Amino acid sequence: MSAYGELETRFRRLTALREAAGLLHWDMSTMMPAGGAAARSEQLAALDIACHGILADPAMGDLLATAEEEGADLDPWQRANLREMRRDWVHQTALGPDLVEALSKARHRCEMTWRTARPANDFAAVLPAFRELLALVREAAQAKAVALGCSPYDALLDEFEPGGTAARIDRIFDDLAAFLPGFLSRALERQATMPTPMVPPGPFPVARQEALARRLMERIGFDFDHGRLDVSLHPFCGGVPDDVRITTRYDEGDFTKALMGVLHETGHALYERGLPERWRWQPVGQACGMAVHESQSLLIEMQACRSAPFITFLAPLARAAFEGDGPAWDADNLCRLYNRVEPGLIRVDADEVTYPAHVIVRYRLEKRMIASDLDPADLPAAWNESMEALLGLRPPDDRDGCLQDIHWYDGAWGYFPTYTLGAMAAAQLFAAAVAENPDIPAALGCGDFSALVAWLRRNVHAWGAFYDSTDALLEQATGRALDPAAFRAHLERRYLA
Amino acid sequence: MSAYGELETRFRRLTALREAAGLLHWDMSTMMPAGGAAARSEQLAALDIACHGILADPAMGDLLATAEEEGADLDPWQRANLREMRRDWVHQTALGPDLVEALSKARHRCEMTWRTARPANDFAAVLPAFRELLALVREAAQAKAVALGCSPYDALLDEFEPGGTAARIDRIFDDLAAFLPGFLSRALERQATMPTPMVPPGPFPVARQEALARRLMERIGFDFDHGRLDVSLHPFCGGVPDDVRITTRYDEGDFTKALMGVLHETGHALYERGLPERWRWQPVGQACGMAVHESQSLLIEMQACRSAPFITFLAPLARAAFEGDGPAWDADNLCRLYNRVEPGLIRVDADEVTYPAHVIVRYRLEKRMIASDLDPADLPAAWNESMEALLGLRPPDDRDGCLQDIHWYDGAWGYFPTYTLGAMAAAQLFAAAVAENPDIPAALGCGDFSALVAWLRRNVHAWGAFYDSTDALLEQATGRALDPAAFRAHLERRYLA
Repeated sequence: MSAYGELETRFRRLTALREAAGLLHWDMSTMMPAGGAAARSEQLAALDIACHGILADPAMGDLLATAEEEGADLDPWQRANLREMRRDWVHQTALGPDLVEALSKARHRCEMTWRTARPANDFAAVLPAFRELLALVREAAQAKAVALGCSPYDALLDEFEPGGTAARIDRIFDDLAAFLPGFLSRALERQATMPTPMVPPGPFPVARQEALARRLMERIGFDFDHGRLDVSLHPFCGGVPDDVRITTRYDEGDFTKALMGVLHETGHALYERGLPERWRWQPVGQACGMAVHESQSLLIEMQACRSAPFITFLAPLARAAFEGDGPAWDADNLCRLYNRVEPGLIRVDADEVTYPAHVIVRYRLEKRMIASDLDPADLPAAWNESMEALLGLRPPDDRDGCLQDIHWYDGAWGYFPTYTLGAMAAAQLFAAAVAENPDIPAALGCGDFSALVAWLRRNVHAWGAFYDSTDALLEQATGRALDPAAFRAHLERRYLA
Repeated sequence: MSAYGELETRFRRLTALREAAGLLHWDMSTMMPAGGAAARSEQLAALDIACHGILADPAMGDLLATAEEEGADLDPWQRANLREMRRDWVHQTALGPDLVEALSKARHRCEMTWRTARPANDFAAVLPAFRELLALVREAAQAKAVALGCSPYDALLDEFEPGGTAARIDRIFDDLAAFLPGFLSRALERQATMPTPMVPPGPFPVARQEALARRLMERIGFDFDHGRLDVSLHPFCGGVPDDVRITTRYDEGDFTKALMGVLHETGHALYERGLPERWRWQPVGQACGMAVHESQSLLIEMQACRSAPFITFLAPLARAAFEGDGPAWDADNLCRLYNRVEPGLIRVDADEVTYPAHVIVRYRLEKRMIASDLDPADLPAAWNESMEALLGLRPPDDRDGCLQDIHWYDGAWGYFPTYTLGAMAAAQLFAAAVAENPDIPAALGCGDFSALVAWLRRNVHAWGAFYDSTDALLEQATGRALDPAAFRAHLERRYLA
């Protein structure tokens, strides 16, 4: 067998083991009784060790080098697959086993402390574990920077956004930070001239919310022979491409969040289902990165499902599902409700106009912490100042400030920018799809997603990780690299027109 | 680190990976959409390979030999653990990695085909996959027979019933096959002198059946912080000791089967929960074997929950749960119903008098198939003849004949005899518990299982796999090795007294 063929065999096993871990994570969030937690950590750690063992096998480096020499005999997909194999290998083997173990334990310790420190609004309680974790993350970033030949922050970013650089994101986010405050004022002014949206009165029984969500998921193209919808505290899209499992949480007093949350996760699910079947078990058959993944959920949620045509389709279905009555159920009211702009303290509750500010705050702070320009003890003050500068709001406490997100406390550094890169990519992809097929918005008004999803399948999903960056994928799909102009145009059309 | 200490580290990882596989199996039977099957097969195969890799590591043989030389420094539990490690190692390394992978995939393929072939009553549809699987099972049996120094059938049996032999089982089953027909006639004669039990009229909504089942599970000692109850086609007890997952299937026309099935699985679950915490991740901390496992479910179901005292406790609860009315709900009627003897075609529906006949049919047939004395294509005819000879009933089709059980189609050969060995051990253990604490039957009449469960915890559960055979465990718990006399005495007391 060729070195490349041997690599395919090994990576197939690796993918299968990672999927097993993914399913155990899904189970942990949806099915597992509390008493199963300690054993689950042990099971997941054993899977991590098994996965690491496949990549850390001393033969792996030679196999990669030999396969790269064979490169001329490989077709473009195989070459892209080999590129992704090396990327994975570099990330996983850049750290020595001691650092891997220390990081894993520090993450667990910090996350566990955070789980009680956040509700207790007690940053000081998590600070020692946070400081220890950050020191190890910096050490890992340093090691990966050497292996990848880039800066430490870019090395962290690369895991979530292949090929992404802080230099590029700085330019995009600086422009956005300059554009957004003025835009926000204008959007709020225009909003003030319109009727205040009414909130449909509940209660909304869970069973009815779920039935409506399932009906819409099927409309969009979710196949329940290959997936599930369940409940978890923090909604997510898990499972595997043949068996995509999305979750939501229901509030019987307000159906709107769970419904739009399900449509968001359905976007993630469509991407997973649409990945190239031929490369199902190989690195090149996986998603291109987290920015592209988020672009797929935000395209379905923000671009398609919060659009006026779709809400016009949705309104009578929602009214019927909940036996609603009165003007709160009118499409124009629901449209104003689903597109209301309101600066707030919490990222996950933010509208799409203010959301980037939440991301920029986190991105700038995490870069400073990785560069040792900001001591963890000074994070709360720096957070509050940034929020005031960018959103005009000062958090009254750390619970709704720098303690609100799990990411840093769980060791996910370099992840936050992908949310806003994804929002921009979503606008750019949707605009390109509509340019190619101008009937798409009208079809959404009939609840018909087929043309839109077919375009996404062809131009995004089916490419997996064939392209080595979000830019390269977007260039292929839309004719140009990531360009914030489409996002700004979208915001202007939706919030100022 | 000592060789023994190193082995504990490695077996801890192995146990954790096996638990991951166990949870994926549970998910497959309860949660997975049909479209996830092929990927699940791949994930489970990768886990099998990872587990096999831990045991097949060339260092493992030396570690075991060195640890065995260190034996004098080990305490009795460590020595028992080492014995179980070697047993596991011999079983797993007897097979080459290619055979392990081929078996895993063939099992999955055959089981998936069986899942549709059984309802379609189409033995021919499953025959190719069945034949392929049997050939691989025979190859594995042959390889293990060499490694263990026993016959191929005993080598398969050893995996489920450590130290068990067909020679011993033949003697027990031949005696039983001689005893049962006469006993059955007498039991049926006596039954004919009593009122025919009335079946409580339904329907019995699933939600109410489940609520009653959960209430009784908690009574017996099932802890829902450490377990779940779900629905599957084929009821089983899965999960892990900290998170035991039992399943059932509900029939809205008859609550009695699901209820007693849940109590049966609860017996399995209690065993898992009661295994020694100190040895949670080690081979010696696992169940002693499948006969002992089945003894725990049958002790709870047959010995405790079908006893007159418990049914006296159950009857008013069931009546209230289903708002039942009339004499069908009287305890003496339910007692006759739950202890009715009636030869039938289906093993899982069989009463405890005729159940052994079902097992003996399977045991004798599987021995012949492993010995190549019976071609798979001839199984349906051989099955029907055996059933006629032993129970006087000829199945009208294969759905209710040789397709009825999952075991062979899932690769579990050498498993069936453990059901009847378990039934005998259950009778022996229950008699010993009552001899030590004569108040147990009266306590069951109040729904109080605490004394019985405490006795089981102390004398069975807490020992894990410390003893090397069912006989040794029974000797410790009851003062003698497995002795069918207790089972016969139980049958005589219940069905002839």
